[in-house]
Amino acid sequence: MLKTIGILGGMGPAATVDLMNRIISLTDAERDQDHIPMLVDNNTRIPDRTDAILHGGESPVAEMLASARRLEAAGADFIIVPCHTAHYFLPQIENKINIPVLGMPTETAKLLKIKGVKRASVLATDGTVESGLYGAALERMGIQTVYPDADEQRLVMSLVYDYIKKGVTDPSKLPREAVTRMVGDLSSQGAEVLLLACTELPIAFSLMGLRSEAFVDPTIVLAKSAIRMAGAKRRRG
Amino acid sequence: MLKTIGILGGMGPAATVDLMNRIISLTDAERDQDHIPMLVDNNTRIPDRTDAILHGGESPVAEMLASARRLEAAGADFIIVPCHTAHYFLPQIENKINIPVLGMPTETAKLLKIKGVKRASVLATDGTVESGLYGAALERMGIQTVYPDADEQRLVMSLVYDYIKKGVTDPSKLPREAVTRMVGDLSSQGAEVLLLACTELPIAFSLMGLRSEAFVDPTIVLAKSAIRMAGAKRRRG
Repeated sequence: MLKTIGILGGMGPAATVDLMNRIISLTDAERDQDHIPMLVDNNTRIPDRTDAILHGGESPVAEMLASARRLEAAGADFIIVPCHTAHYFLPQIENKINIPVLGMPTETAKLLKIKGVKRASVLATDGTVESGLYGAALERMGIQTVYPDADEQRLVMSLVYDYIKKGVTDPSKLPREAVTRMVGDLSSQGAEVLLLACTELPIAFSLMGLRSEAFVDPTIVLAKSAIRMAGAKRRRG
Repeated sequence: MLKTIGILGGMGPAATVDLMNRIISLTDAERDQDHIPMLVDNNTRIPDRTDAILHGGESPVAEMLASARRLEAAGADFIIVPCHTAHYFLPQIENKINIPVLGMPTETAKLLKIKGVKRASVLATDGTVESGLYGAALERMGIQTVYPDADEQRLVMSLVYDYIKKGVTDPSKLPREAVTRMVGDLSSQGAEVLLLACTELPIAFSLMGLRSEAFVDPTIVLAKSAIRMAGAKRRRG
């Protein structure tokens, strides 16, 4: 019997649907009943996470906790959260519910440890970098973090806010050369993998035609972990 | 304050995600918090609906009712069901819960009535046609149903099962000429609109490049009704 995945979502709705889609398409299923039961709380009443971390905005914890409790009461066996920034607040929620939360940074760090990675670079927004979420999770697995320098971090932020969030989809308009230089620089500092730890970054890299085994999307890692935890089989190939 | 949409889903998971996507993309929103809260029960434990109607298979009612009650308990204000065939069982569920269900056939028939339509054709699988769901909903609004003849109904079934469900996406392989002839035949019998009342049909028509104001997708009608019922604004254009 498959376990029920609880998705604490709505941060934002598109990322919530994207994670559901990844779980569905990565599950080895021939009919509806082979798919994993999911309870999804697309809770758009949760206040903005970045605003709370960086500018003292309203805390999202009360609404996130309400969602987590709803998912638990409805029968979810464990919870996943399709929002990198929201992971900052999970320690204030996990100890108030009685089902586990699979965290993206932890699941990603565990995967890199299994793969024998010693050094990884984290590409993320200022909020995620400053929260130290990925750095701490990697450190717990004995993996060193190679951070982009100030110029490179500005490039990452620009890629997210000036290009992808503004709807730029023309590959020729994206700063492919600068990004390639950054990737080379981080690799030369020993980074064996680059975590694309912001939902916009895998989109940007894909548009620029930058594909490599070294680029790891934590959302896909989370989808795969959730499938395993639910007791379902992964689609191969 | 926006109402919370409950989605009784999992029939199948892809159709569930598709309806969520339509609601999200049709909502006029500038930030996460402008989007409609949704509680989604992707209940893949619900037995096959067509099998229950046509071949005496296990009834889906118990699992569908369990989902509806979970959604109500979690705070959904009303329920929608992204599966045409499942609507056959809704009368056995609606009277056991205390929140309304927006039905696809009813919402579609209401829309056609508002548009002044007198005659409509229903393209759907044998199960949906035999259930009489769309015919009855249209009749209640004073709209006559023009059914495909036996050959045309076989063409509709073939389009769904031999082409789209088997993954045929090459437009040149689809029976465009036969479908065009059927559309012409139904129109000549006075059908002002054609309801594409099976999730595979809008995909097939779109692949074949058959686009017309006369083709109505009840899933889109349902998404728009749900947005209105939730109290949100629709994106224009």
